[in-house]
Amino acid sequence: MKKSALQTARASYQPKLPEAIKNGVTIVEGKATQSVADQEAIAKLFPNTYGMPVLRFEAAAKKEYPAINVGVILSGGQAPGGHNVISGLFDGLKALNKESRLFGFLLGPGGLIEHKYMELTADIIDDYRNTGGFDIIGSGRTKLETKDQFDSGLEIIKELGIKAVVIIGGDDSNTNACVLAEYYKQIGAGVQVIGCPKTIDGDLKNEMIESSFGFDTACKVYSEVIGNIQRDCNSAKKYWHFIKLMGRSASHIALECALQTQPNICLISEEIEAKQMTLDDVVNYIAEIVAARAAKGNNFGTVLIPEGLIEFIPAMKRLIAELNDYLAANGSEFAMIKKSEQINYIIKHLSPENSAIYASLPEGVARQLTLDRDPHGNVQVSLIETEKLLGEMVGRRLAEMKAEGKFVGKFATQFHFFGYEGRCADPSNFDADYCYSLGYTAALLVGEGKTGYMSSVRNTTKPASEWIAGGVPVTMMMNMERRHGEMKPVIQKALVRLDGAPFKYFAAHRDEWAMNTCYVYPGPIQYFGPTEVCDQPTKTLMLEQNGTI
Amino acid sequence: MKKSALQTARASYQPKLPEAIKNGVTIVEGKATQSVADQEAIAKLFPNTYGMPVLRFEAAAKKEYPAINVGVILSGGQAPGGHNVISGLFDGLKALNKESRLFGFLLGPGGLIEHKYMELTADIIDDYRNTGGFDIIGSGRTKLETKDQFDSGLEIIKELGIKAVVIIGGDDSNTNACVLAEYYKQIGAGVQVIGCPKTIDGDLKNEMIESSFGFDTACKVYSEVIGNIQRDCNSAKKYWHFIKLMGRSASHIALECALQTQPNICLISEEIEAKQMTLDDVVNYIAEIVAARAAKGNNFGTVLIPEGLIEFIPAMKRLIAELNDYLAANGSEFAMIKKSEQINYIIKHLSPENSAIYASLPEGVARQLTLDRDPHGNVQVSLIETEKLLGEMVGRRLAEMKAEGKFVGKFATQFHFFGYEGRCADPSNFDADYCYSLGYTAALLVGEGKTGYMSSVRNTTKPASEWIAGGVPVTMMMNMERRHGEMKPVIQKALVRLDGAPFKYFAAHRDEWAMNTCYVYPGPIQYFGPTEVCDQPTKTLMLEQNGTI
Repeated sequence: MKKSALQTARASYQPKLPEAIKNGVTIVEGKATQSVADQEAIAKLFPNTYGMPVLRFEAAAKKEYPAINVGVILSGGQAPGGHNVISGLFDGLKALNKESRLFGFLLGPGGLIEHKYMELTADIIDDYRNTGGFDIIGSGRTKLETKDQFDSGLEIIKELGIKAVVIIGGDDSNTNACVLAEYYKQIGAGVQVIGCPKTIDGDLKNEMIESSFGFDTACKVYSEVIGNIQRDCNSAKKYWHFIKLMGRSASHIALECALQTQPNICLISEEIEAKQMTLDDVVNYIAEIVAARAAKGNNFGTVLIPEGLIEFIPAMKRLIAELNDYLAANGSEFAMIKKSEQINYIIKHLSPENSAIYASLPEGVARQLTLDRDPHGNVQVSLIETEKLLGEMVGRRLAEMKAEGKFVGKFATQFHFFGYEGRCADPSNFDADYCYSLGYTAALLVGEGKTGYMSSVRNTTKPASEWIAGGVPVTMMMNMERRHGEMKPVIQKALVRLDGAPFKYFAAHRDEWAMNTCYVYPGPIQYFGPTEVCDQPTKTLMLEQNGTI
Repeated sequence: MKKSALQTARASYQPKLPEAIKNGVTIVEGKATQSVADQEAIAKLFPNTYGMPVLRFEAAAKKEYPAINVGVILSGGQAPGGHNVISGLFDGLKALNKESRLFGFLLGPGGLIEHKYMELTADIIDDYRNTGGFDIIGSGRTKLETKDQFDSGLEIIKELGIKAVVIIGGDDSNTNACVLAEYYKQIGAGVQVIGCPKTIDGDLKNEMIESSFGFDTACKVYSEVIGNIQRDCNSAKKYWHFIKLMGRSASHIALECALQTQPNICLISEEIEAKQMTLDDVVNYIAEIVAARAAKGNNFGTVLIPEGLIEFIPAMKRLIAELNDYLAANGSEFAMIKKSEQINYIIKHLSPENSAIYASLPEGVARQLTLDRDPHGNVQVSLIETEKLLGEMVGRRLAEMKAEGKFVGKFATQFHFFGYEGRCADPSNFDADYCYSLGYTAALLVGEGKTGYMSSVRNTTKPASEWIAGGVPVTMMMNMERRHGEMKPVIQKALVRLDGAPFKYFAAHRDEWAMNTCYVYPGPIQYFGPTEVCDQPTKTLMLEQNGTI
């Protein structure tokens, strides 16, 4: 494997650990816990793993632990730092007992079910320290949900003498980890399951989980390129750049990038939903800012857009729901309609409200909403080029405003979508340290015989030595939600809170950022420089934990 | 202006200068020069600036220089390091004489013509040291070509007591700088003009100009995100990523990024033209590699595509030429055709060869080729989403191969286009030093009374102290080319040489990179770390100058 100069130099970085877990540990137990909602239902579904206390590790004399075999799984989309979770886990297990062994299941949960694995030895681990990506064992999206899967997994677990499985994933994967923990405990399999909070989207967080790993690095990569685009925008002074960012379910990424780069406009899906804004409202909001800047001679700007925006606009949600229902019932009739007649056909057959919205959409988007459907017959919202949709509709609105004398200027656009650029970046110092600590903590939880816990590292705006490591019962984060028509226990997703410090800071500054050009250019992630450049957590985390940036 | 932590830390970086120009200098003149081609015609067009010698600065006792007022212009697309050219120029002028002053013309050459300018004082300069972008005075694409423009410029030049104008731009802007130098000399205006070689495209280089500034940084930013995508690709193992990169006229960027990241496929426009490849040839080339990787179970990969590819495919060039001609002559008739009939209409009216190619194109591209035309009636090739065109056609070809049993696998695609992400990045140490040295050298050329020269800094694969600073007569790089139907003197563009070391290295390795997964992950540009991470020039430059990387 040929390595870049940075990879080679970075390989020797020793991630920082909380002081409390560097040597021996003892466990401090908190009080019994409750799930965040639907306590009765959750308690009933998790009789063996519900109500366990929050755990905190404190420094103590070194203990002896038996050798343990552990399996690890990377689940779902990539996030920077996954390799450091694994190297922290590996080092933690070896610190417990040199004879401990680590097995990696290949290409996600499917590897457990299909018995595909490799042993992760020291030389392999060393090749991946402080690197981005999940390529050490690959990842996958198979959901661990059924008894058959659990039983099949148990076969290979028994064969390899595995005592614990660590599942690195997002909210769904950690929910499933807990279901698996409950099942193995219930049948007395003697297998522990520990989760680790991963997702660049930043929507797996709560009182005990300050952030999911990868959010820090991914947002910094996006902010780097957004900053570069803003500098270009402010140099050429002739384009409006519409920049879509990852974040289907929550707008944390867009918000963090806005805090980092101070764009002219940033849309927050949660606010748009709360204010019951229509697509026209959103378009008008942007168009008004474009016109106001143009009036001052500034025919350029930047707009950040979260990927999931469309689904947060109540009227669009209703339109999509009716389209899904209508086409599910009348799909074969619709398939007979000539392509050139399809849009008119749909307009005629929708309810008046939805028909009007549909008719207002640019042709490309209207077509996309009726043609490209997933195997369940649903619109594939992720395929909608929201940034182009908004750019086109704002352009139309500005043409009307020009005719009314309300817009005097030019409006030319450029479009960008950033996703894959950030998910596998080399982890920032923060994520390198945080992930390594999460993995190391997971090893300690395994050593202490725990199951149904998520590895937790808190106090993360302080220096790493002061971080607090421990475990949080997964059931504590759960509530009941309707999924595919059934009520299911799931970890409550953390959306952007409109009363939270990050959004409030943004809301207090956005008008100034809109009218004036206040761009900040964060530049690329640095690993070797002064601490104020290399070791800062996200603005979101600083605001949430300390109320200030 | 709120600054990021990196901006603040980076502001104090002192760019390195060649040892020879740190104090006093003397000029060593080379022999009289000739233009690279068409000597007679160029000599005739530039009677006052033709044939001048190459200049080299050597260290000497410090001399006294009079105070000089200088104007500076940023011309054309942004490139990382422009601010350092200006700060080097400023510091160089102040070193000549503390009373020297620097004026920036605003938003490109237009600022000179329209008398829009600002004085660049020490506090302004300090705010922009080592930063990306051209926002200090803005840039623009107005071409300085006519006597009226020159004369209008001369008015403000006289008003401000300016003795020299430094034009920072690409091949066209430097050509125009030389035309301006010639004109001012011819009329005895007493105004010198000096050029600086800028363009991320890397196509302004020759024996005396080792690289244009910005190429280093931009390629490193693109390589960072390509590396991140490759790591994702190698983790999820389920997508082919088609990545388009800047480079209309030459493929240096794609080639450099390939050398940095070792993708599975990289297309080089110059090779495709030289081999007279058809679009089908290109599609087959990609499809064969996809199928061969799939046969080994690898349904993923990366393809780098230079922006200008389409225009280098001879058959596509002929199709576009016929379309331009046909629609110029029959535009009003074509405008009457129903949208659903347009493609068939075109197919019927083209020559058989072009008709067949046109019929083979995906509908979206076919439509784009007939509908979106620039004000001169030409196809806007830059709007063609070449990455999607190739992805779609490869998908079709693979479906045929599957039916023939020649492809057993899956083919899912993701598309990316990187341009604005790299043009305004903070300059790498290389570009920060190189640009500062170019600007400082320009000041010395001004001090020495030179005109019609381009600032030149060579020996750049060595430490900066050993760099060779001097001036190259712009006429030396010129030849005659047909532009808009007229023969014009222009700086010869440097295309990728198929017999050059960078391409040969790539060609020797690409088969291995195609079949095996040899991705390299360069990571983000570093400013503070070990020299092998922070101070390396491009692979292209290393191979060109030293024959090895």
